[in-house]
Amino acid sequence: MTPLRIAGIRLAATAAGIRYQGRDDLVLLELPPGAEAAAVFTTNAFCAAPVQLARAHLAQGRPRYLLINSGNANAGTGARGLADAEACCTALAAAAACAPEQVLPFSTGVIGEYLPVERIASALPGLLDGLETDGWEAAARAIMTTDTRPKTAATRCDLGGRQASVVGMAKGAGMIRPDMATMLAFIATDAAVPAGLLDELLRAAVADTFNAISIDGDTSTNDACVLCAAGTLAGGPVAARSTAAAVLGEAIHDVCETLAKAIVRDGEGATKHVTIEVVEAASAAEARAVADTIAHSPLVKTALFASDPNWGRILAAVGRAGLDALDIEQVRIWLDDCLIVSGGGRDAAYTEDAGRAVMSRDAFRIRVALGRGDAAARVITCDLSYDYVRINAEYRT
Amino acid sequence: MTPLRIAGIRLAATAAGIRYQGRDDLVLLELPPGAEAAAVFTTNAFCAAPVQLARAHLAQGRPRYLLINSGNANAGTGARGLADAEACCTALAAAAACAPEQVLPFSTGVIGEYLPVERIASALPGLLDGLETDGWEAAARAIMTTDTRPKTAATRCDLGGRQASVVGMAKGAGMIRPDMATMLAFIATDAAVPAGLLDELLRAAVADTFNAISIDGDTSTNDACVLCAAGTLAGGPVAARSTAAAVLGEAIHDVCETLAKAIVRDGEGATKHVTIEVVEAASAAEARAVADTIAHSPLVKTALFASDPNWGRILAAVGRAGLDALDIEQVRIWLDDCLIVSGGGRDAAYTEDAGRAVMSRDAFRIRVALGRGDAAARVITCDLSYDYVRINAEYRT
Repeated sequence: MTPLRIAGIRLAATAAGIRYQGRDDLVLLELPPGAEAAAVFTTNAFCAAPVQLARAHLAQGRPRYLLINSGNANAGTGARGLADAEACCTALAAAAACAPEQVLPFSTGVIGEYLPVERIASALPGLLDGLETDGWEAAARAIMTTDTRPKTAATRCDLGGRQASVVGMAKGAGMIRPDMATMLAFIATDAAVPAGLLDELLRAAVADTFNAISIDGDTSTNDACVLCAAGTLAGGPVAARSTAAAVLGEAIHDVCETLAKAIVRDGEGATKHVTIEVVEAASAAEARAVADTIAHSPLVKTALFASDPNWGRILAAVGRAGLDALDIEQVRIWLDDCLIVSGGGRDAAYTEDAGRAVMSRDAFRIRVALGRGDAAARVITCDLSYDYVRINAEYRT
Repeated sequence: MTPLRIAGIRLAATAAGIRYQGRDDLVLLELPPGAEAAAVFTTNAFCAAPVQLARAHLAQGRPRYLLINSGNANAGTGARGLADAEACCTALAAAAACAPEQVLPFSTGVIGEYLPVERIASALPGLLDGLETDGWEAAARAIMTTDTRPKTAATRCDLGGRQASVVGMAKGAGMIRPDMATMLAFIATDAAVPAGLLDELLRAAVADTFNAISIDGDTSTNDACVLCAAGTLAGGPVAARSTAAAVLGEAIHDVCETLAKAIVRDGEGATKHVTIEVVEAASAAEARAVADTIAHSPLVKTALFASDPNWGRILAAVGRAGLDALDIEQVRIWLDDCLIVSGGGRDAAYTEDAGRAVMSRDAFRIRVALGRGDAAARVITCDLSYDYVRINAEYRT
């Protein structure tokens, strides 16, 4: 197995008592001087205080520390929430002898409660003392909220004779008591990557991985995904539009995809892992609209839970996705390799037994061909089960 | 109680054995010569054969008969489905001595099975013999699929000294084994209303009643709402832009609202009846976008089920509704009269007990003020319960 390690990057985790008892809930990730970072954040207008601050700090240049807590999202906390997040950055900057702007804060957990700044500040000296290159696994565990297992991934790639590493950790989104279910992901490479290219590689990787998983269609106030380039790999920076950039981009994509799939699989209540592929669309946007409509349909999701090849629900979802002048005669829908819809209705050769055989699998694919063009989209989702309702209704009560 | 009766309109219901045993499943509604009709249909691209045919027939002028069956949606049935619907219209036209184009067909029930045309045709003579003015209640019962009770409404209004009647019946949508849960609504008045005005009154009434209820966000292949004007009320037609038109429009709106609310209340699995009001929006479209995002959020809906005043979920839904440059400081959110969110987070005076007191009610209002303008929207919805999953997962299995 590829080791979870990036030369120059050190991590530490500790139990600061933010919300949980007897487990780590605070992580410090240290970047070497000169490292670059890029990030994408939630588009939710009610974005949390740490999201606002991390975005502002990142705009001012190279960060040295990522400070991540679980148990409290510091969201919906207004001006005090922002001051609390700033206080944490300032405390760390003082202890680590850097500027507050070189600290990026991240939080995940309950919305609407104030951050226990004192407890976090008190834990910082211990975290700084405990930093180590092999801290990824412990960090992945500490950022969990209701995830059932830590999520890490690592790969290597060949940049023209140089072996670069890419490592990542993430925590889950949706269906896992989703109030506490911000998606946070931290990916790093030892390669040196200029800021512009790093941003480009991150956005390309996220588009069809983290941004293409759907649990329940709700987006969090705290979602963030960060890509760091330590620059500790010998041989100079990776050039934009080079073969090395493409190879590194693919490795980053692979790590993001592994983590994104792990998030879907870890959805509490999820019993099925379903990939929705839409092809032959007139544009990527309409392909995505159809995939999202299917992925978010409660009727489709309950049919998935029941292993019921209820093609009428999939067909109805395609029909209401808002496509201009959709010719339903051209639409074909498959469950894995089983054609279920053609010519505006059930395919003549389709049998219920064949459909049920596919739907009974733990993982399968719903494929929709629209007959309108060459564009495609893919979304990974899961089913809607009793446990989804139980987890989300019973949380907080 | 206002009687369920419109002079000149007769109905009959019978058990044609389309799917159910021992209950009526086929309805004939007869309009007097000269009656006008207007209709709105599902926007789903995979609209059912009867929807295509009813739309085409209505475009050719005044209908004489509405033929409505439950148990089979005749959707996803391709060319044969269209031929089957046509065969039913032709059979009725022959028996009733009218043109096939004067028959509007409607179907609701399972998707993807062929209509038993023979059984329907055989039942037509009996239906024609049984037509009666007092047939609304029996008809409302016969068009049910998994509705637990028939839905009817009636009111009267004063058109400058003339008492006009408005009567309606509907069957439910969503959450009621939604594959069989087409929303069908048939409203009628004895007033004479020119076709153009009738269409206008229907669209105005539907906009914030049937089109403003949300069970699970899925729309059916078969939804239809028809408004008929028998023209049997003495005194000549209602003129466009007259006071009488406004008064009649309000009565039609009231009947639609009563039926729409009855549909939400009858949602199997629904335990809460929630009105979402969005005010101070820059446009009606953005008000509706916010209301829909809240109404369709599985996280909000499971919190409603749990009577959990989880304001973070409502706030997050507002934040992801896609509004340009939303100033979250301006947003206020109430549960009935209890202010829960202001200044970008939980209102200072809010207490969990006050929120829980509202959420424990069977019916309450979520009110969102955006501070961006004067536009508003309203959506009526319900919660997401264990029973929603049970009903939708166990159907067909």
